[in-house]
Amino acid sequence: MDPIRIEDPRDPRVAGYLDIRERDLAGRQGRFVAEGKVVLDLLLSSGRLSAESVLVLENRLSGLTEILRKAPADLPVYVVTSTLMDAIAGFHMHRGILAIGRKETPQAAGPLLDALPAQALVVVLIGIANHDNMGSIFRNAAAFGADAVLMDATCCDPLYRKAIRVSVGAALKIPFASFTDSAGFTAMLAERGFEQFALSPRGRTEIRDADPAARLALYLGTEGEGLPESLLDRLHTVRITMSEGFDSLNVAAASAIALHHFSNR
Amino acid sequence: MDPIRIEDPRDPRVAGYLDIRERDLAGRQGRFVAEGKVVLDLLLSSGRLSAESVLVLENRLSGLTEILRKAPADLPVYVVTSTLMDAIAGFHMHRGILAIGRKETPQAAGPLLDALPAQALVVVLIGIANHDNMGSIFRNAAAFGADAVLMDATCCDPLYRKAIRVSVGAALKIPFASFTDSAGFTAMLAERGFEQFALSPRGRTEIRDADPAARLALYLGTEGEGLPESLLDRLHTVRITMSEGFDSLNVAAASAIALHHFSNR
Repeated sequence: MDPIRIEDPRDPRVAGYLDIRERDLAGRQGRFVAEGKVVLDLLLSSGRLSAESVLVLENRLSGLTEILRKAPADLPVYVVTSTLMDAIAGFHMHRGILAIGRKETPQAAGPLLDALPAQALVVVLIGIANHDNMGSIFRNAAAFGADAVLMDATCCDPLYRKAIRVSVGAALKIPFASFTDSAGFTAMLAERGFEQFALSPRGRTEIRDADPAARLALYLGTEGEGLPESLLDRLHTVRITMSEGFDSLNVAAASAIALHHFSNR
Repeated sequence: MDPIRIEDPRDPRVAGYLDIRERDLAGRQGRFVAEGKVVLDLLLSSGRLSAESVLVLENRLSGLTEILRKAPADLPVYVVTSTLMDAIAGFHMHRGILAIGRKETPQAAGPLLDALPAQALVVVLIGIANHDNMGSIFRNAAAFGADAVLMDATCCDPLYRKAIRVSVGAALKIPFASFTDSAGFTAMLAERGFEQFALSPRGRTEIRDADPAARLALYLGTEGEGLPESLLDRLHTVRITMSEGFDSLNVAAASAIALHHFSNR
């Protein structure tokens, strides 16, 4: 692989990296942006996702030799000065390592569940619309060995640039899929032998007393509204006991506590 | 309390709110900025901290009636249009509720520890330099009833605007103090009967098997470097078991797991 020197921010070969922040909002037609060394490594090691190109600061290139060896020989690696990197990205990119990846064809929830092993832990997200929370939940899910993340249609995209960054690449690692009908999805999990737990401040069982199961699904909802009552009625509900007067835990922090409890089985 | 209408962004009465982001970096000489309704409520309810003024969007004022009743009658409440709010703050302030508070005289670690009850949980931070992490750790500390946060000199300021916001006001609620000499501070805790635990990926005991104590201190270090070996040698070390191949947990997520374990005693 020979690095390609780019001298002009309008060079069409780096058009995908132009004005990164604005593009985050407009969308990228099936592509995503990965930032940083750890995330690039995960992208190039991924069996599922592929990179279209890499854009790197000249002084970071030598540190990427090992990682870039994992890439196909024909992957374009563009090299730029710091000034040019900022001119392309539209703001100061101190990390200096970017890549554009191609998303997979969205996977349906059923086939994803069918591919899971006999012992499996899945995270089910309802209405997680904040990219920080999404990224943190993926990071925690990876740390505790979750096998998949399933999301309802109101969740945000885990492959949004910031979500990937906060996940430290876990969003590229853990398979995920979306579903539209929560009731139908719950039935789908039940048919496949999953014990289903929902985290809620009004949960019946303190999380430390909840018995894990070989196949287990953990539902997490938004911080404000929480999970809908209609869903809570059909699931085992678990709570995290908090101090009186400040019963406020970020959903990502709550996911860490619950996943740690259920993962060490 | 009669709200005072402000018409000019250069009005000296709102000078403290000018160019909020730039001011974050330059510092505020003993003052801090609180954002949002929940944080304002905590500031006005605080016995320790006091507000100098409040700046609020005209359409948010009626929602603050209850909260503003907790303020001294002479607290200035400035009311502005959305356009003026943005002109003052220097960016789009969609929350629409700001206040300037006065910091306390920094407290020494010794007197703060002496004021703690017989059963106490304290969080000790070494090198936490990221305001997001600082805010999240304070939020978790409040959620699990920690009595105090103690920080070494390399930690960032918990009363930085973003740290307060991420903490959902917990940074205004939990007493904190700094220390310079870690070894001396550890001795100080030991003299006062604290069992001292340090969270580390190489910890000897899995956190779920760590026995709580009536007086307990939990040390947390930076994500990259972790706690220094010289410190780990003198403390009980605990680990959070993670999945192989992705042993990466954000320090705030780790704090949630550890505080949940130690708080329900």
